[in-house]
Amino acid sequence: MIQPHAIFNINGMITSEDIGISVLDRGYLYGDSLYEVVRSYRGVFVHLEEHLDRLENSARLCSMKLGQSRAVYREQILRTFEAFQKQPDMSRTDVYCRIIVTRGVGRIGFAHSKIQTPSQFTLILMPIEEPSPDQWKQGLHLWIADRLRNDSRALDPAMKSGNYLNSVLAYLETVETQRSLPVDDAVLCNSEGHVTEGTTFNIFYVRRGIVCTPPLEIGILDGITRREVIELARNEKMEVREVRFPRERLLEADEVFVTSSIKEVMAVTRINGIDLKSRQEGPVTRALRLLYRDSVDQRVAKLETGL
Amino acid sequence: MIQPHAIFNINGMITSEDIGISVLDRGYLYGDSLYEVVRSYRGVFVHLEEHLDRLENSARLCSMKLGQSRAVYREQILRTFEAFQKQPDMSRTDVYCRIIVTRGVGRIGFAHSKIQTPSQFTLILMPIEEPSPDQWKQGLHLWIADRLRNDSRALDPAMKSGNYLNSVLAYLETVETQRSLPVDDAVLCNSEGHVTEGTTFNIFYVRRGIVCTPPLEIGILDGITRREVIELARNEKMEVREVRFPRERLLEADEVFVTSSIKEVMAVTRINGIDLKSRQEGPVTRALRLLYRDSVDQRVAKLETGL
Repeated sequence: MIQPHAIFNINGMITSEDIGISVLDRGYLYGDSLYEVVRSYRGVFVHLEEHLDRLENSARLCSMKLGQSRAVYREQILRTFEAFQKQPDMSRTDVYCRIIVTRGVGRIGFAHSKIQTPSQFTLILMPIEEPSPDQWKQGLHLWIADRLRNDSRALDPAMKSGNYLNSVLAYLETVETQRSLPVDDAVLCNSEGHVTEGTTFNIFYVRRGIVCTPPLEIGILDGITRREVIELARNEKMEVREVRFPRERLLEADEVFVTSSIKEVMAVTRINGIDLKSRQEGPVTRALRLLYRDSVDQRVAKLETGL
Repeated sequence: MIQPHAIFNINGMITSEDIGISVLDRGYLYGDSLYEVVRSYRGVFVHLEEHLDRLENSARLCSMKLGQSRAVYREQILRTFEAFQKQPDMSRTDVYCRIIVTRGVGRIGFAHSKIQTPSQFTLILMPIEEPSPDQWKQGLHLWIADRLRNDSRALDPAMKSGNYLNSVLAYLETVETQRSLPVDDAVLCNSEGHVTEGTTFNIFYVRRGIVCTPPLEIGILDGITRREVIELARNEKMEVREVRFPRERLLEADEVFVTSSIKEVMAVTRINGIDLKSRQEGPVTRALRLLYRDSVDQRVAKLETGL
């Protein structure tokens, strides 16, 4: 079993077997698909609506007609989660849930008639793999990739699509450096030398108490954790700037951290083999991490009461 | 039956049923795959070795270890073709053969251990759909897309990968223009405003007898038909220039044509609704189309004798 305890949902059919998708699915042929990752906290999907908002936005960005209403996607996720929790020992396990929507199964080729197929969906639910206590303590070791981020005029990183090779290739650079330099993940710059985002996360740095992160207009994912962290920091009267900056700014920063649904708010302690000033989680990162956790707890409590 | 008379080969298993591929295949999750399209002429795959060369080059460009030797891919293609021809009424039908190689089936996520999975392959063979006599006569009506071509420093178009959304999005612009303006396909420019290539073809223009096409360094596919047409033209003492040029150059040209394995050498007669000087196939295009066909015939004869 490649992915232990996984439960799949293929167009509404819930199964613990990987029954597969058509080789003529445009997701397989062209990466012509969109996806989202939502996670549960104590059985509750705290940011589900934000992820469904973003799925709809991605669909607009690539002129894809989603095959199901938002209510159907929501219901399918919850039904599949129930099936997941009915598995032995899984009743209290939180999940990683990947929602994949493709432009459908059709005849191969570029033709108007071939491209307008009903969209298909797949859900993959599996036990969430959270960062280990050691990872939280050590912080991330990042690599600034030579590979450039996709230009938003060619393939907009704001669109969370199945064309993920740009990030895969950036990540693979860390594999190549692995023997001389242990690295966890990669960050990409654009053609102007500005830092954009990581393979699966947004990036921030802190300098003299000011929290900085690249603006959405640079061509990055509108991260849901990113958005919440900015709001939480501003509520705490921290100054947050969305600015363009070169890679050097990260190396000179007082603190660097990343955000994502899975990594939440995680400190970065080394970049390209160079120890950062803050060799462990710094005070601002720590404060934002705890604020984010607290916000999640409040959402869980609120959604539980709402049930 | 979505794709009539199709025969599939999934990792060596030949079947007329679309038995599907794993939802955990990296080709489906990330478009982390490579592909080639080879076609037969009177039962002979005339450019098979060139396509396998390019598959190996694509693999180098994305650090993918191909799971099978070249001899195995070759043998699987020929075996699947035999199965295709054994179908009723298919014994003399030529095929479109799509070879897809993915980085494999693995656990979801970015981690060194997850990314190094044995590569998988799929072959899809189906009756080739050649352009109709009307299409040959009318020539192509093209659209110069607003969408920019992927930058080779982000996602190299020379790598024929499953990340094909950039072309899909350019193509979709033609669907949007469809009501006011019938268009067949799209061409993309780069951020400098230079013409690069079409969604599935290379592009050429002719001006005062000189044949011009964008150079490989601009970031385009090293088309096998493109390469052969350049060689054939030079053998005929035509001047061929590989140069960068803006879109206006196409509109002012004496002739415009495209090349691909399926379209061979096909005239373009209208761009963005504007009739070109040559409203039907021009003399240079015609000469090159016939030279290409002749070259294919010679290869077929040579390979048939070699059997």
